[in-house]
Formats: sequence, structure tokens, C-alpha cells
Amino acid sequence: MKGELIYNREHIDEVLSRDNIFVITDANVARLYPFVTAPRGAVVAAGEDSKSTAVWSNLIAKMVAAGCDRQTTVVAVGGGVVGDLAGFVAATFMRGVRWINIPTTLLAQVDSGIGGKTAIDVDGYKNVAGAFWLPEEVVLSSHWLDTLPPREKLCGEGEVFKTALLSPDVYKLYRPGAVDAATIRACADFKFDVTSRDFTEGGLRKILNVGHTVGHALEREDDHRRSHGEYVVMGICLESYLCRDRIDPDFYRAIQETATQLCDICAFEAAKIAAAAAADKKNRDGKIIIMETRAVGNVVERAFTRRQIEEGLSAWKSHR
Amino acid sequence: MKGELIYNREHIDEVLSRDNIFVITDANVARLYPFVTAPRGAVVAAGEDSKSTAVWSNLIAKMVAAGCDRQTTVVAVGGGVVGDLAGFVAATFMRGVRWINIPTTLLAQVDSGIGGKTAIDVDGYKNVAGAFWLPEEVVLSSHWLDTLPPREKLCGEGEVFKTALLSPDVYKLYRPGAVDAATIRACADFKFDVTSRDFTEGGLRKILNVGHTVGHALEREDDHRRSHGEYVVMGICLESYLCRDRIDPDFYRAIQETATQLCDICAFEAAKIAAAAAADKKNRDGKIIIMETRAVGNVVERAFTRRQIEEGLSAWKSHR
Repeated sequence: MKGELIYNREHIDEVLSRDNIFVITDANVARLYPFVTAPRGAVVAAGEDSKSTAVWSNLIAKMVAAGCDRQTTVVAVGGGVVGDLAGFVAATFMRGVRWINIPTTLLAQVDSGIGGKTAIDVDGYKNVAGAFWLPEEVVLSSHWLDTLPPREKLCGEGEVFKTALLSPDVYKLYRPGAVDAATIRACADFKFDVTSRDFTEGGLRKILNVGHTVGHALEREDDHRRSHGEYVVMGICLESYLCRDRIDPDFYRAIQETATQLCDICAFEAAKIAAAAAADKKNRDGKIIIMETRAVGNVVERAFTRRQIEEGLSAWKSHR
Repeated sequence: MKGELIYNREHIDEVLSRDNIFVITDANVARLYPFVTAPRGAVVAAGEDSKSTAVWSNLIAKMVAAGCDRQTTVVAVGGGVVGDLAGFVAATFMRGVRWINIPTTLLAQVDSGIGGKTAIDVDGYKNVAGAFWLPEEVVLSSHWLDTLPPREKLCGEGEVFKTALLSPDVYKLYRPGAVDAATIRACADFKFDVTSRDFTEGGLRKILNVGHTVGHALEREDDHRRSHGEYVVMGICLESYLCRDRIDPDFYRAIQETATQLCDICAFEAAKIAAAAAADKKNRDGKIIIMETRAVGNVVERAFTRRQIEEGLSAWKSHR
């Protein structure tokens, strides 16, 4: 697998001064960091709405008009939206050009910006058009996080918490509410390693879905009112409750404690969450698949019926 | 390289009866061949206008709505437009699914349908968004050609003629005005072999540009009034004239004879063609690159100044 993780603030200036680049960023980054400029580039609106076919095709046309060619390198500076969008532009411009990702949010630095999954939304369907297209470099720097809103920090921390359950290195470093540069680096290294070994989601990448079956269901039913990372935290909390009979008891208590510390769980109807989980794309043979984490890094798939999920979640509500 | 060339009419019925396919075809094929149907699919308008972001994103959304998933195989049944479009849909739907190409025109069977180059047009720029995405199978059958309009036949024959200059096998089989199944097969095998050995256009694929430097320039200046293949024939005729000092004399006479037999050359202004050729994407260091064919299969790059092209073309006009 090509691609490289680079931890170096100065490297960003070097990348932005290269010849034949096209820089894609969003309005927030452009406002807060005026040095993110280049002779050729585009600033898109901040937010998920920029992951559209209209914005994507507009960027392709802008690149042609600006004289970009097959040797051009697309440089993405922004969060997950900019990375997904700019990566898909790079994957498709003249059948694919190089790109460099400079993620500026905690979520993008520890998770979404690493691994080469690029995508846009079509007709309200999230991420249905995209490509696996690895960046040549992912350049990480914690200085961006100084301007990150608390909601965005918590969003990223949800994935840090998840990664701590998967990686002993991250587990040792992670302190809830105080994610430091070393923890970010360990998370990024872990994600990079997993995705390198399973580029197109053959199997290993599945472990990254810890917390995401119930998390996604809550996110949909709660209409995305909170950040994705918070629903992942809730998902980890509830999925570990559903799997508690097979989880190491000390580990289970630690999970519940940290989850509680990070955020409380939104109100939900057990039947609706079970129904939403039944539509999860990981499911097989009519069963709902949950990634069960028995101890740090010890993850196995576990199949539940929709009824088991509903009863388990009802039990959680009545016992808490 | 994955992918397979299959010469078998019956195989088409087998492909169209498979589970979990999504068939993309155009209105002409759907009208002429009612058997091209499947429980899930879409019929696009015939013609280049269908290679648009609007049609592409509409197909992606249709696939989601029809319940397609990562295991779905896209089946393209049509000419170059359908192949380019459906291939790009396959390359991008849920970050890439399998596809099978069933080319129905001579051009697509001998050239454009083989090699995994997929693309759509954006804002009037041709093929600027796309992907290298190989079909699992390319299924060839000459029965489609019975309904092909003469203009389309001539268009494909331009590329057959070009291939004859590159491949001794094709050269032996090719009879101007009478392209048979064996010739088509030899052309397809040749294109498949070249593109297998140079999937992303590192070098070898360049030989396929014989006739295309001057041909593309004529096509643009003549406003696409004739088919692409006719401009390729004209390009071969004029480029070999420009390179005649290094071409085997018997071979040169044979080229001119066949080119004259296939079509006459449109009116042109030498200065305008030289200017258009100066914008060709193959150019290097300010020189115009022409693929010089000295004998069958003996192709070398030759660099011309814009002035040399203009003077050469003027000389051709005054001597003919």
C-alpha cells in the first residue's frame, strides 16, 4: 500500500508551496487559517451538503479550467467532508490523480482521513458514490485542534474511545476528555495499519465497526441531533451491555464508566432501534451483526435476532 | 489483470439471466433487441449527452432505490457511450462493484469497450471525470452489427484500420469495407493484450494513438461533423504523409490506398490544424508528438514543431 503518515507541522507549508497542486478546503478553514492558499484551488461551503454531485462536478470543471493535468496533485485541507469530497475528485479527475490529505479535525485525524475511503452523497443517500483511493500522504498536526468546537472534539473522541478498545497502544495512552498528540498519533497509526492490511474491506476492517451497529441506528432514529462520535459512544455502551455475558468484567466496567463520562444516552424506543439495526449493511442471513469486544483488541462478530436486540435494549432501559 | 474476452452469443443470454445484476443500455438497443431486459436496469437516451453527471448520478440513485449492493454486477449493453457511462457507474457505486461489458457497436467491440477506461463528460469537457475500472468480462458477438448504421460501421472501421497498422494478425485479415468476425476478434485480442500490459497508460498504450494527433485536430476543427473513425482514417493518411521519409515505401502506398478507399479528407486550413495539434495532451517540451508507423507494428514517437506540421499539411494540400 502506498501512502504515508507524516507528523510534521512544517511539512504542511512545504506541501502548500509545491508546483502543480490544486487545494480544496472549506470556508471555516479558509477563514481561520489564511495561510491555506495556493495559486489554484477552491473553497467549498462547510458541512455535509458539499458532498454533492454538483459540488464534485464543479470542482472537476474548475480543475480543467485552471489547467490541471494528470500530474496535478489534489491537496485536501479540512475535516471529513473535505477529505471525502477532495479524495473523490482526485480519484476521478482524468481517471485519477495523486492527492494529499491534511485533516484538520480530530475525527479526520484519527479515523475518517486515513484509509482511502472517498465518497459523495447522491439524492440523499450517504456515501453511495465513491472510490477507494489512497492519498500519497496524510499530514497530521495537532495545531488545527486549537480552533475545534467542543462538539467536534467530542465527535472525534468517540472514535478515539472506540480505537482504545481495539488497540492496546491507544488504550494505555487514552485519558477521557483529554486526548493528546500522542493518543492521536497512536490512533492514526492503528487505523493506517488496519486499512493497509485490508484496503477494500475484505475482513479485518470490520473490527472498526465496534459500537457502530447500535450507534448508527440511534443516530438515524435521533435524526442526527448530536455528533456521530456521541452515537458511537452510546453504541459502544449499549452493544457491550448486550454482549456483557462474554466480556471480561473489569473491561466491561471500564467501558461503561468511560462511556458515561463522555456523554449520556439519548432517549430511544427499543423496538425502533432494533428495526433500524435490522437494516444495517453488515447484517447476514437475517441476523443483526454486532462486533463484540471481549477484551482490548479481542473482537468477534456476534449475531443477534431483531427480537434479542429489542429485548436487550428494553432491559437496559428498565435496569439503569 | 482480471477480465476476460468471451466470444459467444449464448453467453449474453446467460449473463442477462444472472441474479443481482443491474443492466444499463440505451434506447436504440432496447428498441432493436427486446431481449435486453432484466428485473433491474435503466435505459438511457442514445448519444454522447448521456455521458453527463446528471445521468450518472441518476443511475447511482436508481441502483440504491432498486436495492443494489456491493455484490451487484453492472451489465452494460451498448456502444461506447453506454460502456463509458456504465463502467463509471460500476467504478463508483458504493466505491466500486463488478461490471460486464457487452459492446454492440464495431467501435466498442474492437476498441473503446476493451481496456477499462471509463468516463463521463463534465461541463462540456470530454471524459474529464472517470476511472480505470476493468470489466470482469467483455462479451463479443457480431450479431449486433447487423443493425449498425453505415456511419457507425465506418467509425469502427477507422480503428480497425489503425489496428491493422499495429498488429500483423489484423493486417493479414483486414479487407477494407468488409470487416468480418475474425478481424474483429483479432482487433479485440490486440487491444486487450496492449491494455493488459499497460493498464494505466504508462507507455505501451501510446501506440494506440496512431492517427490520433492530426485526427483529433481535424475532428475539433471540422466540428465533429463526421464520425470519430473517419477522422482517424484522415489522421492516419496525413500523419503518414508527414512521416513518409521514414516509412517503408510499399507500406506507405498501402496506407494511402486504403485510407482513400475508406473516406475522403475534409477541407481544412493547415494553420488551424497545426494550432489544434499544438494543444494535444501527448505533446512534450512544446513539440507536437506523432506516432510514426514505419512498418506494421513498428511505431515510434516523432516530435514536430507546429511550423513543420503546418508546412507539411500545406504541402499535402498543394500536391494532391
